[in-house]
Amino acid sequence: MLRTHTCGELRREHIGKEATLCGWVDSYRDHGGGLFVDLRDRYGMTQVVFNPPDTSQPIIDESKQLRAEYVIQVTGKVAERPSGMANSRLATGDIELRVTGFKLLNKSLTPPVSPNAHAQDMPNEELRLEHRYLDLRRPAMQQTLMLRDRLIKGMRDHFANLNFIDVETPILGRSTPEGARDYLVPSRVSRGSFYALPQSPQLYKQILMMAGYDRYVQVARCFRDEDLRADRQPEFTQLDLEMSFIDSDDVMGVIDGLVQKLAKQELGLDVKLPLPRITYDEAMERFGHDAPDLRFGLELVDCTDLAAKSDFRVFSSVATSGGKVRAINAKKGGENYSRRGIDELTEFVKPFGAKGLAWFKVEADGTLQSTIAKNFKPELLKEIGTRLKAEPGDLLLFVADTWKVTCKALYALRQKIGAEMKLYDPKTMNFSWVVEFPMFDFDDEEKRWVAMHHPFTSPRDQDFGLLDTDPGACRAKAYDLVINGSEAGGGTIRIHDPGIQQKVFSLLGIDEKTAEERFGFLLRALKYGAPPHGGIALGIDRWVMLFGGLDNIRDCIAFPKTQRASDLMTGAPGDVETKQLKELGIKVEL
Amino acid sequence: MLRTHTCGELRREHIGKEATLCGWVDSYRDHGGGLFVDLRDRYGMTQVVFNPPDTSQPIIDESKQLRAEYVIQVTGKVAERPSGMANSRLATGDIELRVTGFKLLNKSLTPPVSPNAHAQDMPNEELRLEHRYLDLRRPAMQQTLMLRDRLIKGMRDHFANLNFIDVETPILGRSTPEGARDYLVPSRVSRGSFYALPQSPQLYKQILMMAGYDRYVQVARCFRDEDLRADRQPEFTQLDLEMSFIDSDDVMGVIDGLVQKLAKQELGLDVKLPLPRITYDEAMERFGHDAPDLRFGLELVDCTDLAAKSDFRVFSSVATSGGKVRAINAKKGGENYSRRGIDELTEFVKPFGAKGLAWFKVEADGTLQSTIAKNFKPELLKEIGTRLKAEPGDLLLFVADTWKVTCKALYALRQKIGAEMKLYDPKTMNFSWVVEFPMFDFDDEEKRWVAMHHPFTSPRDQDFGLLDTDPGACRAKAYDLVINGSEAGGGTIRIHDPGIQQKVFSLLGIDEKTAEERFGFLLRALKYGAPPHGGIALGIDRWVMLFGGLDNIRDCIAFPKTQRASDLMTGAPGDVETKQLKELGIKVEL
Repeated sequence: MLRTHTCGELRREHIGKEATLCGWVDSYRDHGGGLFVDLRDRYGMTQVVFNPPDTSQPIIDESKQLRAEYVIQVTGKVAERPSGMANSRLATGDIELRVTGFKLLNKSLTPPVSPNAHAQDMPNEELRLEHRYLDLRRPAMQQTLMLRDRLIKGMRDHFANLNFIDVETPILGRSTPEGARDYLVPSRVSRGSFYALPQSPQLYKQILMMAGYDRYVQVARCFRDEDLRADRQPEFTQLDLEMSFIDSDDVMGVIDGLVQKLAKQELGLDVKLPLPRITYDEAMERFGHDAPDLRFGLELVDCTDLAAKSDFRVFSSVATSGGKVRAINAKKGGENYSRRGIDELTEFVKPFGAKGLAWFKVEADGTLQSTIAKNFKPELLKEIGTRLKAEPGDLLLFVADTWKVTCKALYALRQKIGAEMKLYDPKTMNFSWVVEFPMFDFDDEEKRWVAMHHPFTSPRDQDFGLLDTDPGACRAKAYDLVINGSEAGGGTIRIHDPGIQQKVFSLLGIDEKTAEERFGFLLRALKYGAPPHGGIALGIDRWVMLFGGLDNIRDCIAFPKTQRASDLMTGAPGDVETKQLKELGIKVEL
Repeated sequence: MLRTHTCGELRREHIGKEATLCGWVDSYRDHGGGLFVDLRDRYGMTQVVFNPPDTSQPIIDESKQLRAEYVIQVTGKVAERPSGMANSRLATGDIELRVTGFKLLNKSLTPPVSPNAHAQDMPNEELRLEHRYLDLRRPAMQQTLMLRDRLIKGMRDHFANLNFIDVETPILGRSTPEGARDYLVPSRVSRGSFYALPQSPQLYKQILMMAGYDRYVQVARCFRDEDLRADRQPEFTQLDLEMSFIDSDDVMGVIDGLVQKLAKQELGLDVKLPLPRITYDEAMERFGHDAPDLRFGLELVDCTDLAAKSDFRVFSSVATSGGKVRAINAKKGGENYSRRGIDELTEFVKPFGAKGLAWFKVEADGTLQSTIAKNFKPELLKEIGTRLKAEPGDLLLFVADTWKVTCKALYALRQKIGAEMKLYDPKTMNFSWVVEFPMFDFDDEEKRWVAMHHPFTSPRDQDFGLLDTDPGACRAKAYDLVINGSEAGGGTIRIHDPGIQQKVFSLLGIDEKTAEERFGFLLRALKYGAPPHGGIALGIDRWVMLFGGLDNIRDCIAFPKTQRASDLMTGAPGDVETKQLKELGIKVEL
């Protein structure tokens, strides 16, 4: 080792001892006679002093060439900082190293992205990604990647203690087109054939259960060739697990334990178990979303029946033609939102499909005031006020539209108002389960049922009969973990009965030939003694974001891709040689 | 949970208690009145008894349908086995479960590959791979995958304790054609461009050191599109690590500790540290191989000077024209190998380039006897005998050829004779380091220097000058871990000085433009304060093979590919839809 200690290690108790440190010059201050350097490594920062008489003149002279990001090795005596010079913000702030030996290990050009811990201006993201080797030196990035390391290690340890076995599943797999696009890999040995990168290890982990592995876990890289949204990456990491001889409660139970452990470890929070569970139907009813942010109230209230009684055409026509009129009560929101503010809210909900926003302010005497109030009889206004628990100063906001639009628009509105009115402490964390999702969603365009999760999801035992009679009412053994309104994981109990699997396939319009082509091996495996099994996958990138309080997924990944799916540091994807393509038997044809 | 215990858990102390087990019917014996079932899961096997009076008649009747690999749930009382019926080979062999409750969880067709623990015949590998869900049920496969899990966990824990940080590097990277072929992934967003799957995280881990991560570790999936040898897979797993502010000894030191820990944990061996080290030159001189099997002697001895003095033309002409005459002494091998046996050895060495094998048997009186003996003066024979420490009964075997051919042929011969004469206990494990590899190898065909490891490898400090004067004599800071004659890992200290990197590139004929195209980002990163750093990668599949005493790499991997790089279970690689290729802007052209 070129050092005896790291830059985060020296303390009062080392005073008087000799130490050798290596690191990067974070900053330096030339005091004429000598030089003060803040020396940085992953572990911290230590003040290093080049000053006579400890430091010899030749070393002082040499030290004058030091610039930001030079890499040095220094030996010296650990000394107490002069009185009044201690730095309580640094773990090493009581001491400094008085240099007696020095070696310049490497120079640095002036960095286009400053890793300096106190740099004020965050350079633009493109520059950061291009020079990721410098950006990753920033203490904030290092903290995040260390958090990521601890979260993953915490997950691995948790499941190892519960007898899970870590099994690696292939990256070069078989394409089973459904849902997202696969990334393809042309085969050279079997020219004209292609491997696909896995969207998840779903089929392999089910195979592992059928092969008797009982409890499987893997930190798995997954791939989706989708048009990227801000929070999506072409490759992402999941904590993937599967268990045999269990039901939904058992899977949620092992995750509950994990949440409690990691929340304590990383955030110092005491999370009570079991985590709260709400059904999908309740989540949609109360919040309009299947992954609701439960850090605050501001719940949706259905007023369709009351709206039907009004003379306000927008309300009555929607209410009487199968639509919904739903509202939220922004408590004390009357002061927060002026008429102009309400106009802005109205514009805000339009991209979610709402044609407008109806509103009432609650006056000091309890009456509801609005430009549309004249269309409502006083008794009706009273009923509406009672339904929404209106109190003086409240602001009542209504969307009248299809059920889906009221969900989307009002959930988005709720989130906006919740943040603007500071209805929750951004540092609190809410962990909860949403359960009993519908098995199927009706695709209005294609006029057919599609799987809400995936075609291997099991219905609830009591709903087997509904497969034949009312698929839309059939609920699945499905559970999503929601943290602060983000889906942080999702899983299901799988079908282990070949007959039920057959029935679900046929409901989804997957005929025997297609089923055989896509997952024939899974269907065969089902016939040789498949145990009851199920599992879950947690989105690790998302967990890092939530636990780190970050708002950019790219800050949670060491070498992320841009929204154009390119790596600005390496230039991937890039050109390849014609010879390579020839060997693969493929040709570019734009 | 559908069970209270696993099938490997019940012991004497549970006698009298009630338990519920789930598992697979490994075997069953119908005794007319009732049924004995060996119930199997990943954890073990338990005898389950369907017999009156404990078991009700309806359950006994139902149990009669049970066949191999049916999945069942049974509840009953744990009882001592009748006297004389205990099975000491089973951990649960003292007890049995007398069934009172029963549920058939799933049926099974007759399995084409029997998971039965006592199945005598190993089905052919093709069938096993096709029905991997059944093959993976075999206890031998489960033991191997659990060994793999423990080895990887042991590695992760070891490095986490040493402050290494686990960082995930991208799978979708940039193609840098050199060495093996890359697997390519066409980009849809940037049509005509390609990602490449990483052959190793080499460049990323060096970037991480330049970014100050200090100690990095990852269990990394790597990919090589090579023509597959028996022990190669298109995707394989490496324990990949890199350290900063260190030299070769430090890297070898952390691996030494790992070897000691895992050898104790898995094999009960006490390995003394530091592991022995021999230089590349010594390894080639004494064994003819850079990853020698050190479990036994049978070393190569150079007899070129003596051969030059003989009248045996084959020897003298090789010896006087720059070739080598080298030999091994198979102690007491005279009895093992008849004339016909020696003829077989002669045929054996030919594929390694040797034109033949010269031999002497040592007679009881110490004289060397051979068909070629007449070409050697008695004093010369005596000198040869002395050089080879010949004793009565020994067999001396010579190859006269280029240095390279003598190495290859005699090393292969040594391995063959070592195994046939049982010169070592196959259960012993020898761990050692081979160090100080040459920096460069001269490619006779292309008439140029090629890198022995990779172009980022650092020369030894004392050899920097040789880069200019005698590259062939320049030795690298390189170290390979060798277990029983298999390369189980390899690493180097990297160049951190841009000037030396430039010099090495130019020696390798990599001009500035090519260097910029392939690893421009690494060269740029080198200019912003790269620390001294180096690392190593361990071949995990190989470790599992060696620690598990296995001889087939496919038995060490859950879902391996065949030598034709295909997955017989899923059918990967497979056909894809024309629409998929169109979106990617590529076309198959065979």
